[in-house]
Amino acid sequence: MTTKAHCLALDAQDPLAHLRADFALPEGVIYLDGNSLGARPVAALERAREVVDLEWGDGLIRSWNSAGWRALPERLGNKLARLIGADEDEVVVTDTTSINLFKVLVAALRIQAQRDPARKVIVSEASNFPTDLYMAEGLANMLQQGYSLRLVQSPEELPEAIGTDTAVVMITHVNYKTGYLHDMAGLTALAHECGALTIWDLAHSAGAVPVDLKAANADYAIGCTYKYLNGGPGSPAFVWVSPDLRDQVWQPLSGWWGHARQFDMESHYEPAPGIGRYLCGTQPITSMALVECGLDIFAKTDMQALRRKSLALTDLFIELVRQRCATHPLTLVTPLEHARRGSHVSFEHPEGYAVIQALIERGVIGDYREPRIMRFGFTPLYTSFSDVWQAVETLGEILDSGTWQQERFRVRNRVT
Amino acid sequence: MTTKAHCLALDAQDPLAHLRADFALPEGVIYLDGNSLGARPVAALERAREVVDLEWGDGLIRSWNSAGWRALPERLGNKLARLIGADEDEVVVTDTTSINLFKVLVAALRIQAQRDPARKVIVSEASNFPTDLYMAEGLANMLQQGYSLRLVQSPEELPEAIGTDTAVVMITHVNYKTGYLHDMAGLTALAHECGALTIWDLAHSAGAVPVDLKAANADYAIGCTYKYLNGGPGSPAFVWVSPDLRDQVWQPLSGWWGHARQFDMESHYEPAPGIGRYLCGTQPITSMALVECGLDIFAKTDMQALRRKSLALTDLFIELVRQRCATHPLTLVTPLEHARRGSHVSFEHPEGYAVIQALIERGVIGDYREPRIMRFGFTPLYTSFSDVWQAVETLGEILDSGTWQQERFRVRNRVT
Repeated sequence: MTTKAHCLALDAQDPLAHLRADFALPEGVIYLDGNSLGARPVAALERAREVVDLEWGDGLIRSWNSAGWRALPERLGNKLARLIGADEDEVVVTDTTSINLFKVLVAALRIQAQRDPARKVIVSEASNFPTDLYMAEGLANMLQQGYSLRLVQSPEELPEAIGTDTAVVMITHVNYKTGYLHDMAGLTALAHECGALTIWDLAHSAGAVPVDLKAANADYAIGCTYKYLNGGPGSPAFVWVSPDLRDQVWQPLSGWWGHARQFDMESHYEPAPGIGRYLCGTQPITSMALVECGLDIFAKTDMQALRRKSLALTDLFIELVRQRCATHPLTLVTPLEHARRGSHVSFEHPEGYAVIQALIERGVIGDYREPRIMRFGFTPLYTSFSDVWQAVETLGEILDSGTWQQERFRVRNRVT
Repeated sequence: MTTKAHCLALDAQDPLAHLRADFALPEGVIYLDGNSLGARPVAALERAREVVDLEWGDGLIRSWNSAGWRALPERLGNKLARLIGADEDEVVVTDTTSINLFKVLVAALRIQAQRDPARKVIVSEASNFPTDLYMAEGLANMLQQGYSLRLVQSPEELPEAIGTDTAVVMITHVNYKTGYLHDMAGLTALAHECGALTIWDLAHSAGAVPVDLKAANADYAIGCTYKYLNGGPGSPAFVWVSPDLRDQVWQPLSGWWGHARQFDMESHYEPAPGIGRYLCGTQPITSMALVECGLDIFAKTDMQALRRKSLALTDLFIELVRQRCATHPLTLVTPLEHARRGSHVSFEHPEGYAVIQALIERGVIGDYREPRIMRFGFTPLYTSFSDVWQAVETLGEILDSGTWQQERFRVRNRVT
């Protein structure tokens, strides 16, 4: 039996417990949805005031220089690089994950078209985050050059699916539904053996699990800053490209910010050397500036410490659900094996949608993903072990009492 | 002789003078660069606090519904529509101008490929804003299907340049350098007669001059919210597509937000009906929310009243420069004809860069564009007639005294 006292003891020993004070979490809420929108760093409120009042209001156009707006994509990229195993000047923060995926996918296909034009297949998972599949579909649809998607139903099918016809393997490192953590180094090696390039979507892994792009010999990576990195709602995404590939081709979204000489206002495009060529148009500075508040908290710890706590939190959650909710039809979807588990845990329940609504009403915020999946994110920067205890206790009460069966919890009007 | 007293009298009679109080302008600055970054609405500071503290901090993921984040692109689009002659539910605010140009350019080319695949030319101006040309170049470069740009040197060459080989005419309605205001209805009619489609970049006209997309029978329009619309640094851009064309093809950046059923998480893309299909990925909510503060000020007036004051301001500026700076080598670049003039005025000076730097140091903020162009934006919401007087007086003093010849004004390290 794991007890509440044990959870409180874990909190008392938690070397990361002090970092919770860096976040402004509302009273009465246990937030297990940081994998969808990270909590607000305390510092973000004052930073927003600075950007809006001083930099925009007083500095006006001068702030492009004086407040360092021009250098934000690179400055933030450098702070983020250490979390994903990239080096200095290899990452920029810009645009959205979808847009960045489009850039790297076109770049990868162009390189493959030079190497072996017969490679026309993009391999991915059917359960990949839909927008990644949609972007690939939109690209194939536009190019009309015979590109197609090959979607596997489970990670085990990937080796079989990658072959001599494969241009790109496009995988979300941690699956958004199941929490399955792919073997980045192993899959990349397999793809390379077959002559394919790899694109890693780090949406659910940057800031959540240790990522080492360079050690894994990865080719391209994109990801989002508003989940585990706590950058703020819809804050700009990031992109990394292996230095070996970076300067070989243009990415197609060739806006002014990616030009080799941005302010010469030439009428022809010449891509900047380095990762700068993956920039495009003018960025939303207020949203972008707040990303730094989230990244600065990561500088107080390291991904190994975060990973240890993440696994302890998800282990505890799985154990407590089994202990407290054993009589209910809950099926664990997330791998038990540590090496294959991200930082969120998903359970199927036949009425998962209604159960999640009932939980949210009680202040335990997880989310729901089709079909039947209740998803709970564990963010070691601010989730405590007693949060986990209280969340499972509330889940147990809701399941036991059947309150989730009330009509109001079944009406689908949510957007998350 | 136009006197300072006359300018003060114009201010006293100005029916829009009270709107200046809606903006937080710094002391000691005359801001003539609202065509590059609009001034901060007073309301934006409190709105930023609300979004960051209450909506993000307290509401967390729930704010997608409860704070209306999900509906922001459409809600802002509807407020903007009336400024550009579009109807309800025809405009969305999203992504950047460059990205939106890519979407509509691909859409237009796809429609032309169905109608007449031999049309491979994109007609534009050599002096169009560079990023528009770069995006077209990037697209042509990616497609490798024989698309090319035909750039005219002056507006007069456009009729000659548009022909049976022309797929798209892509023009920035008000030229960013010269302030030349194109005849939208006339050029669109001409393009349509030749079988071409039109894309209008409204970056320097939305909120600056009356725009009537539907009366002009335009096909596509994009534009930015951070210039005359005062949305904040790098705030998201907008896109409008003629309802006749909107649902005919996919735009290629087919992210989740443009899906017909966004939250069913299907693995295949189906574009939403209507302008919603021009949405792509998750948007920077904090930056986006502030756009509303700028748009709400426009609801207190109308584009006709703004246009009257804009022309009065630019007339006064041109007249005062001639009166005060006659002995200096200044060449007016902007059309004198009202029908061809936007809301900014450009003068060439052989050392325009250094002169602008000297002006900025004295608190008169205009900007510089290659080659030799000093650019001054007049934003009737907050520019007064005595601002114009003071700006020209300062310019005259700088030119007379030759202070701009100091070395420090010649060092090019600006980024605007």
